[in-house]
Amino acid sequence: MNISILGFGTVGRGVYEMIQAAPGMEARKVLVLPQECTESFMVTSIDEITSDAGTDTVVECMGGIHPAYEFASASLKAGKSFVTSNKALVANFGIELQALAEEKGVSFLFSAACGGGIPVLHNISVASQTDSILKCGGILNGTTNFILTKMQGEGKSYQDALFEAQKLGYAEKDPSADVSGLDTLRKVMLLSSVSFSVLPAEGLCREGIENFTSSVADYLSDEGRTLRLMGECGKGEKGIYAYVEPVAVKKTDVEASISSNINYAWYLGENSGLIGLSGQGAGRYPTASAVLRDLSAIMEGKKSMLGKDCVRGVADNSGKECRHTYLLCCDGRFEKTPELSVSDMHEMVRSMREKGSRVFFAQYR
Amino acid sequence: MNISILGFGTVGRGVYEMIQAAPGMEARKVLVLPQECTESFMVTSIDEITSDAGTDTVVECMGGIHPAYEFASASLKAGKSFVTSNKALVANFGIELQALAEEKGVSFLFSAACGGGIPVLHNISVASQTDSILKCGGILNGTTNFILTKMQGEGKSYQDALFEAQKLGYAEKDPSADVSGLDTLRKVMLLSSVSFSVLPAEGLCREGIENFTSSVADYLSDEGRTLRLMGECGKGEKGIYAYVEPVAVKKTDVEASISSNINYAWYLGENSGLIGLSGQGAGRYPTASAVLRDLSAIMEGKKSMLGKDCVRGVADNSGKECRHTYLLCCDGRFEKTPELSVSDMHEMVRSMREKGSRVFFAQYR
Repeated sequence: MNISILGFGTVGRGVYEMIQAAPGMEARKVLVLPQECTESFMVTSIDEITSDAGTDTVVECMGGIHPAYEFASASLKAGKSFVTSNKALVANFGIELQALAEEKGVSFLFSAACGGGIPVLHNISVASQTDSILKCGGILNGTTNFILTKMQGEGKSYQDALFEAQKLGYAEKDPSADVSGLDTLRKVMLLSSVSFSVLPAEGLCREGIENFTSSVADYLSDEGRTLRLMGECGKGEKGIYAYVEPVAVKKTDVEASISSNINYAWYLGENSGLIGLSGQGAGRYPTASAVLRDLSAIMEGKKSMLGKDCVRGVADNSGKECRHTYLLCCDGRFEKTPELSVSDMHEMVRSMREKGSRVFFAQYR
Repeated sequence: MNISILGFGTVGRGVYEMIQAAPGMEARKVLVLPQECTESFMVTSIDEITSDAGTDTVVECMGGIHPAYEFASASLKAGKSFVTSNKALVANFGIELQALAEEKGVSFLFSAACGGGIPVLHNISVASQTDSILKCGGILNGTTNFILTKMQGEGKSYQDALFEAQKLGYAEKDPSADVSGLDTLRKVMLLSSVSFSVLPAEGLCREGIENFTSSVADYLSDEGRTLRLMGECGKGEKGIYAYVEPVAVKKTDVEASISSNINYAWYLGENSGLIGLSGQGAGRYPTASAVLRDLSAIMEGKKSMLGKDCVRGVADNSGKECRHTYLLCCDGRFEKTPELSVSDMHEMVRSMREKGSRVFFAQYR
C-alpha cells in the first residue's frame, strides 16, 4: 500500500511516522504549504499526488472544509482510496465522498474523525453487520472535558480553565467550535451516519458549556453530581434524534470518572447491550493510530464505514426517547424542570435568552 | 455460511437465534445430549456434524475442557472453521487448535471467551496489526464484581452477596472458579496470547476475593476506596508477566464506576494510548453477539486471533513492571506494605497462611 498524506501538522506527522513502521505500507508524498516544503518527499500541489500513479491511497489530515473537500474529490476521482481524520469534512460532505468512492470502486474511511484514538466508529461499523445499533453517544470533546474537570476538580473559573487549556494546546485560540458543542455535534452526526445511515443535518439541538459557572459547579457538587458535555443520537419513533447538551451525572456514573481530556463513547446494541469505549480523543499518536487502523482495514478489503445508502436527514428531538428532567439556572436561581423533550427545553431556553435572561441548563439524570 | 452449534444452553440458544436473523448465515445442526433432543435440527453425535458436508463452520458453546477439546479437534480436522466462547478450552488447548486450523487452512476465533460481549480480543487483534500492545487487563469476572458491589454498596456479608448472586444465576452452585480468580486468570491468559503471542501457563500469581470481609470493606470505604478483582498482563523486561489480584481503587477511578456484573477491559497501545472497553461480560445475547462478530469476521476472511507463532510460556511477576504497594490485613490488623513485586507479595502471603494466619491483601494504587 502506497500512501500520500495531505497536511503535515500534528496528525499528519504522526501518520507519516507510523507508516514507516507498518509492514506493507509505504509513504509516498506529503502535501504541505510552500513555506513548509523542506524535504524531498514534500509537494505543494494536490496534482502531484492525484497524478502520481504510485499512490494508491490518500490520507487527509489538514482539517477545515475547503480545500479539504476539493482535494478529497480530486483524490477519489483519480481512483485513490481516501482516509480522513476531518470531522467537519465528513459531517458536511460524507455522502458525496462516499458516492464518489463507490463510483470508482475505492475505499472511504474516517475512523479518526470521531473519538480520535477510540475505535468507536470501527466497532459500530463491525457490530452493525450482525447486531442492530439502537443509540450511541458520549463525551466526545477533550477540550471541554478538560475545562469542566479543572472547574469542578480545582475550583477554577471558566476563563482560567479555558486559558490553561489554551496554554497546554488542548484548546485553540478561538475555542468556539469546542465550547459551543459544535465539535461534539459533528461527531454525533458521524456516529449517526455509521449507525443509522442517516447524516442528520437539520433539527439538531446544541448547547455548549459557555454558560457554566463556578456557582453552578458548587450547586452540583452539593448534589453529588458532576457536569459533562455529552452528545447522543438514536433511533426514535419518529425517526433519528441527535443532540448535544451538558449533563449533570452522578459521581458514581462511569461518565464522572472520565476526566481531563479523555473521551468516552458508547453504543447500545440490541444484542450486545451497552458497550463503552474510552481513550485519548485527540493527540498525535492516538489519532494517527486510528488512521493506521483504517489503512490496515483497506488492505483487508474494507470499502466503507458510512451506513448503507446513507442519506442526509432531519433530526427529531421531540419524541418520547428524548425526554429528560433538567436543572435550570436562570439569573442565579436554580430549579428542576418536570420531564421535557429535548426540543422543548432548548426552545424554551432560547426564548428566555431572547428576553435577556442569563440561563444555564443541564440534563439531570 | 452454514453453521452447526455444539451445545444449546444459554449461549448456544442465543447464537442459534441470532444466526436466523443474520444475512448470509444459516444454522445447520445443533449437538445436544440425548435427553434434550427434541427438534429435527438437533443431533446427539459429533460425527453427524463433522461428517456433514453442508456445515462449513462449527460454534462451540458447551463449556468445559472435555469433550470440548476432542470435538474442536474433530471439527477442525474435518476442515471446518471453529468459533468458541470457551475460555478454559482456549487457555488449555488454544495453541494446539490454532495449529490444526492452520494445517487445514480454516479459521479459529474466540472473541466471546474473554469479556463476553465486550470486543476486547477483537480490538487488540486489530490494533496489534499497526500498533504495539504494551499491557492489558481489567475487571473480567461479572460474578465477583457483583458480589463486591453488593458487599460495598449495600453492606452485605460475603456469604449473603454470594447467595444473592447464585439466586440471580450470576454465580454457579460451585462458585470456586469465579471467586478464586481462576476464571479471570484464564481470560488474562487469552489476552496475553492475542497481545503478545505468549499463552502463559506457569508462574501465574492468583488471588481471589474469598478472604474479603465486611470489616475490610469498611476500612477501604473510610479511605475513599473500593475493591475490584483485576487481572493484568504485559511485556516486562524479563518477559511476559500475568497475574490476578484484588485492587483497592480510588472511588474516582474508572474501575470504581464499573459496578454489578459489568466488565471492563483495557489495553495500552504504544501509539493509541490507553483504550478502555466496558459492557456485559456474560449473558445470552451479549455473548452470542461476540460469537456472531467472529462468524462475520470469518466471512470477511479472518483466520486467526491468536498472536503469530504463539507459544506456551512462563510468566515473570518479579520485574519492575510488577511492583505495587499493598494493603495487608492479617488476623484483623491492617497495614500498608512498602513497594513489593507481585511474586514476592503472593509468596509472603502464602507463607503467612501456611503458619495459620487469616490474611486478606489488595494492591493499593
